[in-house]
Amino acid sequence: MSEDRIITFLSDFGTLEYYTGAVKGAILSVNPSARIIDLSHDIPSHDLLCAAFTIYGCYLNFPPSTIHLIVVDPGVGSKRRGLVMRTDSGFFVAPDNGVLSLVMAHEETKRIVSIEAEHYFRKPVSPTFHGRDIFGPVAGWISKGIELSNIGSEVLDPVRMGLPATKESESNCLEGFVLHIDKFGNIITSISERDTKSLSDRGKTIQSFSINNREINQQVRFYSEGSDKDPFFLVGSAGFFEVSAQKQSAARIIGAQRGMKVGVHFQDPH
Amino acid sequence: MSEDRIITFLSDFGTLEYYTGAVKGAILSVNPSARIIDLSHDIPSHDLLCAAFTIYGCYLNFPPSTIHLIVVDPGVGSKRRGLVMRTDSGFFVAPDNGVLSLVMAHEETKRIVSIEAEHYFRKPVSPTFHGRDIFGPVAGWISKGIELSNIGSEVLDPVRMGLPATKESESNCLEGFVLHIDKFGNIITSISERDTKSLSDRGKTIQSFSINNREINQQVRFYSEGSDKDPFFLVGSAGFFEVSAQKQSAARIIGAQRGMKVGVHFQDPH
Amino acid sequence: MSEDRIITFLSDFGTLEYYTGAVKGAILSVNPSARIIDLSHDIPSHDLLCAAFTIYGCYLNFPPSTIHLIVVDPGVGSKRRGLVMRTDSGFFVAPDNGVLSLVMAHEETKRIVSIEAEHYFRKPVSPTFHGRDIFGPVAGWISKGIELSNIGSEVLDPVRMGLPATKESESNCLEGFVLHIDKFGNIITSISERDTKSLSDRGKTIQSFSINNREINQQVRFYSEGSDKDPFFLVGSAGFFEVSAQKQSAARIIGAQRGMKVGVHFQDPH
Repeated sequence: MSEDRIITFLSDFGTLEYYTGAVKGAILSVNPSARIIDLSHDIPSHDLLCAAFTIYGCYLNFPPSTIHLIVVDPGVGSKRRGLVMRTDSGFFVAPDNGVLSLVMAHEETKRIVSIEAEHYFRKPVSPTFHGRDIFGPVAGWISKGIELSNIGSEVLDPVRMGLPATKESESNCLEGFVLHIDKFGNIITSISERDTKSLSDRGKTIQSFSINNREINQQVRFYSEGSDKDPFFLVGSAGFFEVSAQKQSAARIIGAQRGMKVGVHFQDPH
Repeated sequence: MSEDRIITFLSDFGTLEYYTGAVKGAILSVNPSARIIDLSHDIPSHDLLCAAFTIYGCYLNFPPSTIHLIVVDPGVGSKRRGLVMRTDSGFFVAPDNGVLSLVMAHEETKRIVSIEAEHYFRKPVSPTFHGRDIFGPVAGWISKGIELSNIGSEVLDPVRMGLPATKESESNCLEGFVLHIDKFGNIITSISERDTKSLSDRGKTIQSFSINNREINQQVRFYSEGSDKDPFFLVGSAGFFEVSAQKQSAARIIGAQRGMKVGVHFQDPH
Repeated sequence: MSEDRIITFLSDFGTLEYYTGAVKGAILSVNPSARIIDLSHDIPSHDLLCAAFTIYGCYLNFPPSTIHLIVVDPGVGSKRRGLVMRTDSGFFVAPDNGVLSLVMAHEETKRIVSIEAEHYFRKPVSPTFHGRDIFGPVAGWISKGIELSNIGSEVLDPVRMGLPATKESESNCLEGFVLHIDKFGNIITSISERDTKSLSDRGKTIQSFSINNREINQQVRFYSEGSDKDPFFLVGSAGFFEVSAQKQSAARIIGAQRGMKVGVHFQDPH
């Protein structure tokens, strides 16, 4: 495998700091041929769910040789482990704090190891900046082709976020929660199109969407198809139901916040 | 032509979303050797004029083999076409919504085709995310050297924004409008240095600049040459007249807004 | 030396402008194989100290063949010189306005030249955009291996910022100032761990930290080790003392501002 592999980089470092530059330099000092692709550095500080959603939303689009480096690390310096996870879709380097939860929920893991082999680290290791001194260099070494077994011992119990599963309630309803509000004000929920299969297999059809004591009745396929006046819902590009509004922020209109309960309501076949 | 061609990427996706990452991944899945250069992802949502100005301001600086991918796409999913445009200065991949208007106004187009060949798309095509599923992959394929004629049929009537042309009014004045306000507060207008040629050929010289009922008298060549106290005007780096102020926002001082009328006033030769 | 060298790019251009794209294009038009790494473009407009701190914080992490391009240039168009500086750790291309001060303070310079050789410039040179027309192209030419002596004459008196040195006051105290406040609200000071050597060699130990009439008593090694209630101090990843708070902005709690005096207080050996 050639050494000019792609390393994506996702962090909460912001875009006005030396932190992202330092990590990029540390990667390139290990493998000058690595090709670094910025995903985002504007994850809100310490927001693991937002980071988990962001990497989930795009990892499948990259070639499977890609290494995804995720540095959102409120526990830096403590005893939390660092992980390297391999799946059929890519490699993931991240702290063991749940940030890979959504990927793990949708993807069979081939192997997860704990980052232990200190000879791959930048020295001295700052107790406040493992992105530069541990995660970045390890991503660089993986891009050079080292085996995961050289990095550390196998991990069978990675930390997972306790996200509520989408569940079918008695009243013809799928219940989930608001997973993310995007910059356009789209309200992206935890309910995926896949989750509706069991109900639609029984001939039931979607009738409406509920959020914050409000019922939304128009389902569309794409944004510009929606009403000019009222919010509407659709299946978004990551496969989740979302609520949107025409050239306005649906989140503001509805007063939606992350974590809020939402429901997709079905009707029985006629 | 080698496959490590440059693809620039301009969007209104913001920097905190999976959207830019997904597009980058989709490009690299088609051509892993493509080199992606971020232009900006902070175009205000759906702001076609801002995107048109941004790509206009920098496309000429890139090598002519460069592919410029522009995804500002309020009409995603609807019947609006997607375009690939070729000029002597580069390739442009964008929705057919006017976002290429300023480039077209300054550059002879060699060929424009409509994006039709679905075998170049990522499947399934999400009706909400053509950046990832159509425009990105098509940019990737162009970077691998496919011919435009393989992508779709020729387009002779691309959408153009109805931007008011700079015009000479009777009173020794060139009239234009505010095209963009930049992060330094510089007020960039639609009047280019080239537009003054006809008047200066007749021996007339620039006397003042008018905006928002205010007259600006000092013309300078560069920012630090300007007065410490009052706004001044100059020809900016994209060739347009702009109003600026010393270490302050000229836009705030003057109360300028995009679209506002402006004038360059001339005096007759002595 | 191969031509696919790394050029880092730091500016105050913001992320919504054509300016960064234009510079990138100008570099790639000189050397299409150069690999551009964004450090930050969100330096506050004209903020030389912030830029000086940002490049200082990360240049050492890059391979020594790296070229660091820094365009924060309030004096563009005036007679201020442009510089290329070479050290054992890299090449630096920047206006001669003090933005390299922190690097110079910590690194022996091998050679500094003034940018004079106009045949390396993009023509015509806009008096408002030397980043695109001078600094970017020169960085591109350096990445192709030209000698510094071809660029211009030697500079022995580069502009340096007049930053107050850390000094030992009579009362067992090291005095410095707030150098930077980062996005997490960490207060990064000008006092480095190295500065404490003379006092700790005499057996003195650190007792507390003072800032804005407030005494901070808890010293930790990493953020998550700190108190949940009160701010604490530690040596950060760039080697400077910093004040931090658990999942909050220490700067907001303390009312810290850049430039504010700070002190590290020592006690005599028992």
